[in-house]
Amino acid sequence: MMRLSPPQNYRFIQAHELHITYGGGEANVSMSLARMGFPAEHVTAFPDNELGRAAAQHIQQQGVSLQHTVFRGHRLGLYFLESGASVRASHIVYDRADSAFANLQTDWFDWETILTGASWFHWTGITPAISAQAAAACAAAIQVARRMGITVSADVNYRRNLWQYGQRAQDVMPPLVAGCDVVVCAENDAEDLFGIASDVTSNDSFAQMSVQLMDRFPTIKQVITTRRTTLSASHNQLRGLLCDQTGKTVETPTYDIVPIVDRIGGGDAFVAGFIYGSQAYATAEDALRCGVAASVLKHSIHGDANLATLTEIEAVMAGDTAGRLLR
Amino acid sequence: MMRLSPPQNYRFIQAHELHITYGGGEANVSMSLARMGFPAEHVTAFPDNELGRAAAQHIQQQGVSLQHTVFRGHRLGLYFLESGASVRASHIVYDRADSAFANLQTDWFDWETILTGASWFHWTGITPAISAQAAAACAAAIQVARRMGITVSADVNYRRNLWQYGQRAQDVMPPLVAGCDVVVCAENDAEDLFGIASDVTSNDSFAQMSVQLMDRFPTIKQVITTRRTTLSASHNQLRGLLCDQTGKTVETPTYDIVPIVDRIGGGDAFVAGFIYGSQAYATAEDALRCGVAASVLKHSIHGDANLATLTEIEAVMAGDTAGRLLR
Amino acid sequence: MMRLSPPQNYRFIQAHELHITYGGGEANVSMSLARMGFPAEHVTAFPDNELGRAAAQHIQQQGVSLQHTVFRGHRLGLYFLESGASVRASHIVYDRADSAFANLQTDWFDWETILTGASWFHWTGITPAISAQAAAACAAAIQVARRMGITVSADVNYRRNLWQYGQRAQDVMPPLVAGCDVVVCAENDAEDLFGIASDVTSNDSFAQMSVQLMDRFPTIKQVITTRRTTLSASHNQLRGLLCDQTGKTVETPTYDIVPIVDRIGGGDAFVAGFIYGSQAYATAEDALRCGVAASVLKHSIHGDANLATLTEIEAVMAGDTAGRLLR
Amino acid sequence: MMRLSPPQNYRFIQAHELHITYGGGEANVSMSLARMGFPAEHVTAFPDNELGRAAAQHIQQQGVSLQHTVFRGHRLGLYFLESGASVRASHIVYDRADSAFANLQTDWFDWETILTGASWFHWTGITPAISAQAAAACAAAIQVARRMGITVSADVNYRRNLWQYGQRAQDVMPPLVAGCDVVVCAENDAEDLFGIASDVTSNDSFAQMSVQLMDRFPTIKQVITTRRTTLSASHNQLRGLLCDQTGKTVETPTYDIVPIVDRIGGGDAFVAGFIYGSQAYATAEDALRCGVAASVLKHSIHGDANLATLTEIEAVMAGDTAGRLLR
Amino acid sequence: MMRLSPPQNYRFIQAHELHITYGGGEANVSMSLARMGFPAEHVTAFPDNELGRAAAQHIQQQGVSLQHTVFRGHRLGLYFLESGASVRASHIVYDRADSAFANLQTDWFDWETILTGASWFHWTGITPAISAQAAAACAAAIQVARRMGITVSADVNYRRNLWQYGQRAQDVMPPLVAGCDVVVCAENDAEDLFGIASDVTSNDSFAQMSVQLMDRFPTIKQVITTRRTTLSASHNQLRGLLCDQTGKTVETPTYDIVPIVDRIGGGDAFVAGFIYGSQAYATAEDALRCGVAASVLKHSIHGDANLATLTEIEAVMAGDTAGRLLR
Amino acid sequence: MMRLSPPQNYRFIQAHELHITYGGGEANVSMSLARMGFPAEHVTAFPDNELGRAAAQHIQQQGVSLQHTVFRGHRLGLYFLESGASVRASHIVYDRADSAFANLQTDWFDWETILTGASWFHWTGITPAISAQAAAACAAAIQVARRMGITVSADVNYRRNLWQYGQRAQDVMPPLVAGCDVVVCAENDAEDLFGIASDVTSNDSFAQMSVQLMDRFPTIKQVITTRRTTLSASHNQLRGLLCDQTGKTVETPTYDIVPIVDRIGGGDAFVAGFIYGSQAYATAEDALRCGVAASVLKHSIHGDANLATLTEIEAVMAGDTAGRLLR
Repeated sequence: MMRLSPPQNYRFIQAHELHITYGGGEANVSMSLARMGFPAEHVTAFPDNELGRAAAQHIQQQGVSLQHTVFRGHRLGLYFLESGASVRASHIVYDRADSAFANLQTDWFDWETILTGASWFHWTGITPAISAQAAAACAAAIQVARRMGITVSADVNYRRNLWQYGQRAQDVMPPLVAGCDVVVCAENDAEDLFGIASDVTSNDSFAQMSVQLMDRFPTIKQVITTRRTTLSASHNQLRGLLCDQTGKTVETPTYDIVPIVDRIGGGDAFVAGFIYGSQAYATAEDALRCGVAASVLKHSIHGDANLATLTEIEAVMAGDTAGRLLR
Repeated sequence: MMRLSPPQNYRFIQAHELHITYGGGEANVSMSLARMGFPAEHVTAFPDNELGRAAAQHIQQQGVSLQHTVFRGHRLGLYFLESGASVRASHIVYDRADSAFANLQTDWFDWETILTGASWFHWTGITPAISAQAAAACAAAIQVARRMGITVSADVNYRRNLWQYGQRAQDVMPPLVAGCDVVVCAENDAEDLFGIASDVTSNDSFAQMSVQLMDRFPTIKQVITTRRTTLSASHNQLRGLLCDQTGKTVETPTYDIVPIVDRIGGGDAFVAGFIYGSQAYATAEDALRCGVAASVLKHSIHGDANLATLTEIEAVMAGDTAGRLLR
Repeated sequence: MMRLSPPQNYRFIQAHELHITYGGGEANVSMSLARMGFPAEHVTAFPDNELGRAAAQHIQQQGVSLQHTVFRGHRLGLYFLESGASVRASHIVYDRADSAFANLQTDWFDWETILTGASWFHWTGITPAISAQAAAACAAAIQVARRMGITVSADVNYRRNLWQYGQRAQDVMPPLVAGCDVVVCAENDAEDLFGIASDVTSNDSFAQMSVQLMDRFPTIKQVITTRRTTLSASHNQLRGLLCDQTGKTVETPTYDIVPIVDRIGGGDAFVAGFIYGSQAYATAEDALRCGVAASVLKHSIHGDANLATLTEIEAVMAGDTAGRLLR
Repeated sequence: MMRLSPPQNYRFIQAHELHITYGGGEANVSMSLARMGFPAEHVTAFPDNELGRAAAQHIQQQGVSLQHTVFRGHRLGLYFLESGASVRASHIVYDRADSAFANLQTDWFDWETILTGASWFHWTGITPAISAQAAAACAAAIQVARRMGITVSADVNYRRNLWQYGQRAQDVMPPLVAGCDVVVCAENDAEDLFGIASDVTSNDSFAQMSVQLMDRFPTIKQVITTRRTTLSASHNQLRGLLCDQTGKTVETPTYDIVPIVDRIGGGDAFVAGFIYGSQAYATAEDALRCGVAASVLKHSIHGDANLATLTEIEAVMAGDTAGRLLR
Repeated sequence: MMRLSPPQNYRFIQAHELHITYGGGEANVSMSLARMGFPAEHVTAFPDNELGRAAAQHIQQQGVSLQHTVFRGHRLGLYFLESGASVRASHIVYDRADSAFANLQTDWFDWETILTGASWFHWTGITPAISAQAAAACAAAIQVARRMGITVSADVNYRRNLWQYGQRAQDVMPPLVAGCDVVVCAENDAEDLFGIASDVTSNDSFAQMSVQLMDRFPTIKQVITTRRTTLSASHNQLRGLLCDQTGKTVETPTYDIVPIVDRIGGGDAFVAGFIYGSQAYATAEDALRCGVAASVLKHSIHGDANLATLTEIEAVMAGDTAGRLLR
Repeated sequence: MMRLSPPQNYRFIQAHELHITYGGGEANVSMSLARMGFPAEHVTAFPDNELGRAAAQHIQQQGVSLQHTVFRGHRLGLYFLESGASVRASHIVYDRADSAFANLQTDWFDWETILTGASWFHWTGITPAISAQAAAACAAAIQVARRMGITVSADVNYRRNLWQYGQRAQDVMPPLVAGCDVVVCAENDAEDLFGIASDVTSNDSFAQMSVQLMDRFPTIKQVITTRRTTLSASHNQLRGLLCDQTGKTVETPTYDIVPIVDRIGGGDAFVAGFIYGSQAYATAEDALRCGVAASVLKHSIHGDANLATLTEIEAVMAGDTAGRLLR
């Protein structure tokens, strides 16, 4: 998607220009991974016009391959972002109905070919929410990835008002999640999507939920999430949680994020950091810490994608959050 | 519509920000008229969100009334404009399908009320091209205006690829044009829309066409148009033509426009100047000269709407095209 | 007034461009009210030139009527604002002597006509400070409003160095305040303008002062004010106070404002919120909370006028100050 | 003066920001001379505030001395410039009444000290037009310069609507011009100011006027001017004329200027080039050619002051107007 | 190289910000080819820092492969560009001494591997001018390309002041040119580099020179060049010339380029168009016309690289230089 | 040096434009002093091109004399600054090798002439780190200043990776420091440069170090430093320390700096404040407080140089850190 934002903290009704960047769940994850030095490919559909090409160029610029991306269809999905501050919230106005991506055809993508050589496949709950075709493409990819022994991760990311094409998330998502190894899911999403209840007033609600989720979907080996405390639009706190099949939960320290330069894509940065860390580090805990460090850094960077370097992420993992000038 | 353009002559694929302005045929005419001191109202539908409000505020800022504009529906029509230079053409990418305006309901507008007190109603061929409902609303307005004795003008503005909702312009346009007093129409549009042939190699092709058009649609009293010679994206020449029911044709001098600051809305500025001139000046020739002077000045102004003042327009009408510094 | 500010935190001596916005006490109140959906008119004088028209267009853009504003005189009042940060203060350089507004003629305004249909008239202490004519126009308006049964409010807003035309605030203000129903006044202003002493070290100094003020001016039914704690140019705290004729004082919670995007117009946003709330809500306390919530939100918005929506203001009133992303 | 201009060709009513530069007749001449490597000082009054200091810093940045400039008074003179294009004229809105300069006191300047070591004193007809005090300071400076044997030049630059303080240019200017060695004056100014008639339809009208002017004011040794043909706001032609005491007239070639980047200060650049050339070159013709080349280059430079280098000016004097890329 | 330019026509001494783009002879050719849909790779050395990565990302964004580019060394070559207008020339200040590219090691590049699968290898005379190592790498590449049967083209592009490392162009260039199939060379370069004289006052000087050049270096099959008439910094005319081994010369029409948006990279666009055309079209004349059309379009595009599409280039080749608005 | 920074918090790889400012240790101190009203001269070498002139103009603009600065050599030193936020650090990429300054010749500067009339000479440890010639020029200046009875101060500012020309800081610095009256030095620099150990875990480590330093270099009368606590890239705390020859240490309060607008030049602002204060105030403690107040204010100002006024600095010294709006 093309993201269009008034500069600084200007409101939509004050804007005379909009800054452009490009993003979207899976695109953000791929750009973050490429920036960390991990070869990444993004598979999508862009319209066959100069706006589609501009979006593609932005993603390629980050070193992400678009080898199997298709240039067909008529419009590029858009979203408009107004950045809040202090007590004033940021607002997003989506304008992505009928995008080239929403109208994709499943036969545009030959997943055997696409996934050859891959070690990890990641999708988000936004994709099956967009259209029946997108859900079908997602299902096909998961199936092939599973068959090829590729790790599959999903960020369930349930947004009720996105599901508009006549099917219920509660019907569509379970078979998709059933093909996953790693799932990003918080307690409320688990309840809304899968009817898994947990006592959110208790300290171990995440473990309660995760254990039930892994019982229901036995392929899942790890459930992860971030906990965000929103003190204001300019000041958040963040930590990460992971539960494995043994029910063991690990948790990162809590990071203070102030000021927030750009909050969008914080979740995708977390996922990218976790994917990287799962392959680069020995323990799940380190993977989780990598994800949270990446997400914390993302909040200091303009745009949807986390452009922090691996060096920066590892410094935060090592506890250096002082932001000392580097010469 | 919101118009989004890269600054200066940057291309879409180079753009990091897009300048915002707002326009559209009828909106441009109303803003130009208001700037000339003529009370104008724009009747349309904007989505009920902050982007719709931003569009409305831009038009209100120019002193145009939006008293009967409706705020309903989901998306604002957009278009993306890349400004060419020299041999390189400007490009427009439209993104207005499913806009609030396209999805309007005819019962949102009570034309008796809306047109009370009005002396002139103007519409363009873009409106009936957008959707069946828009065409119906246009037809209803023309009928009511006619009944109330209000002058009706139309800019036929035929764009083949706009007509996508299943009806043919050749069927929809004739009954609408049949309710008009003034029509902006060039020879090729007359041929394409109404099958009216003229010998475009002859000097009086415009008169040939106009006479046939007025024969076909006897309410039409004046046919007007501009002739543009496109020397480059930065250099055009322009003159105006008018044919009345006696078949008499008048023509303005040819104006040299170099450099072109912004070519969009040149036709709407012409119409606004003509409408103003028709009411302010004694002769049709002066109205025509007012339209052309307004259009020539529009090319020196950023955005869709002609923000030239009446003083400036009348100076050009009087032959002052030297652009001498005014202190 | 036109406000001219270097971008971000640049100093005047560093500036190569100045951002334009428009404001002034009464204009800000009217724009805030219009944004909340309350029909508002601003009555002033602008110079009859393109700068005056630009100022007018900005205010009209917010949906404020300028039906009775006069376009006469030679210059637009200006002020230059440099935005501080952290320990560095913001600076204002005023340049409004001899503005069209300062030079207004009282017979330009027929208050019977202007105020017909109005429910509320608001003025600030800046107006009578500017010139004898402005003071006279203000007096005339108050008198007419009073006679027509319209609620009159005043923000006394005493600035010693503004009073330069040969009369003392201490002489001019009392008869004006004597016509008001609601007065925005802090202890130091009451002492400076009306000689009303209060013990500012005591907890109820505001009540002490308010009771005396209402004794002196029996038409006043409510005295309101905000208390601001200035921790730095980037971090303030704010709460509101109201005292009614029974001497009862109500107080809002204290809001933390960090970072401050733009502090100018915070007082006018408070007044607009209070005026709106006085008409929309059942209790004075809710009106006061509406005023403070509006003012707090204003600090997150660029420009003089509070462009927060009613939805946003009511969310802060309801205690939601977390600024969570709205999709 | 501070000059405030909308970017590019935007109109005042479209502007959201204004670009700042600083200028004024004598300031422009001094900055141009400094850029050519000629030691120059500008003597004026700036207000004692951050805007006055910003103006001073801009002029100092160009290497101009402000050793004897006074920082007193309250406001900085301003002017607003809207840049036209093609048939649309540029507009200036002046806002310099009551500036620190207009309110100067003659005893702020001790001309014996100021002019010690100077070889040339230049003033423009704007100064005596501003206020009686400015005219008196100008007269004092001319008198002292004359006594010290310093060459005095004047650009008469008559602008009728500037003379507002109760005296007539026709009374004030003659005694000032009577102290000059070089005068910049065109036929219409000579007629308006001094009642010197010439037949502007004849080819030698400039010589006719100049001879009479030098007869009337015998200290004048050279009369110079530029002839501008205004084809459009974007395209001018320029040449220079000089008449000496023998009545001999020399004339430069005509230069085509297209596009015009910034037309303001073209006359001041001409004067600076002529002053430089008068001291650097052997003949009056070369001095004139230097002035015209400087003026032509000025039109390609943003801002009031000519920032062309001597190398560039001498290239144009030598006939190189092709603007070939220099690596 | 990173190119840093003041916006619009501002001078270096006026600049408060510099616009960034990236370019250089071979980089420009590769980006132009990629934009035309021709798979292109750029082989160079960038410093191993964030500036080197930024340069790489810019080139990758255009779809150019950097698979064999090396990230070593300490600084990125820079150049500063000031854009002239009208009679004022553009200026370039180079700052590329000791760049990573200048300090490359020949063993960083294994040309057998790099050139596998390539059909064309292009180099410019800038590369051997930079350093002895760069010249050696260039020689190695030419030798390998020749052996592998790959077409080799060179733009001799002689700039005397670039050759600073102790060897003479007259010694270094001939053996390099001796390995080429296509050479871009004008008469003055041929004389300076190879001592080949031609009568530049005659109409066939290009043919005279080309025949001698092909006699001297028998591998050369085509000599091409552009002829530029520099009317001003804003207005050039351009045509192309080609001479083949038979001595036959073909020439394109002359194109008028006004205004010039950005003149830099015009020669590289010509080469890219010719390379594309040599492979896509049947005749050398069409290849030449493609090169000139590409170069003409480049002048309307900001930055060093020609971002015109093939569709646009072919339209100009077909004679459409009117730049009509495309909707 | 020219400093080039992406706007706001953008990263190098996101930047499309770079903001220009100019700075460097000694230049920053001189600009700060001039802004406080203290006559200051900066002695350096700039390249003889438009970039060197632009740098010079920037420094002159602040009122600093460049009377003895030399315009010779080929390139201007550059540095690129990326501004961090929150946990993300700011980065500097230096590009100053082979600058005009690094290549200066010692005989370009006649220190007897340059220092005539001066009361204070300041240098930083950056200068002798750059090149052997710069170290020699620094030594010559110190020797002459000492002989002329001018106070000499040094900011030792040890940066290991700067010393690249073949000499060790440990050999070069001691004889230079031996000529100083005031030295800015922290414990780690004292250890690295002079082998002076102190127990950094103790409360009086600064006194321990300072006493040893003054023992070693008996001309030193005062050792000063700042202590910075880096909570994040956006939030620092700062205080100052001074030790005199009696071993007495004074310390300022700790100032909270949040947000940080621009951290660069904080140390130079401290030195300038201390130099000013040493001459303007009665006590060393006040001089120290002036330095720290200046440094704290610097963090709220864009660019390398502290553009706070003396009024602002003295307000902070007096304890006013609330940043209240000044009208």
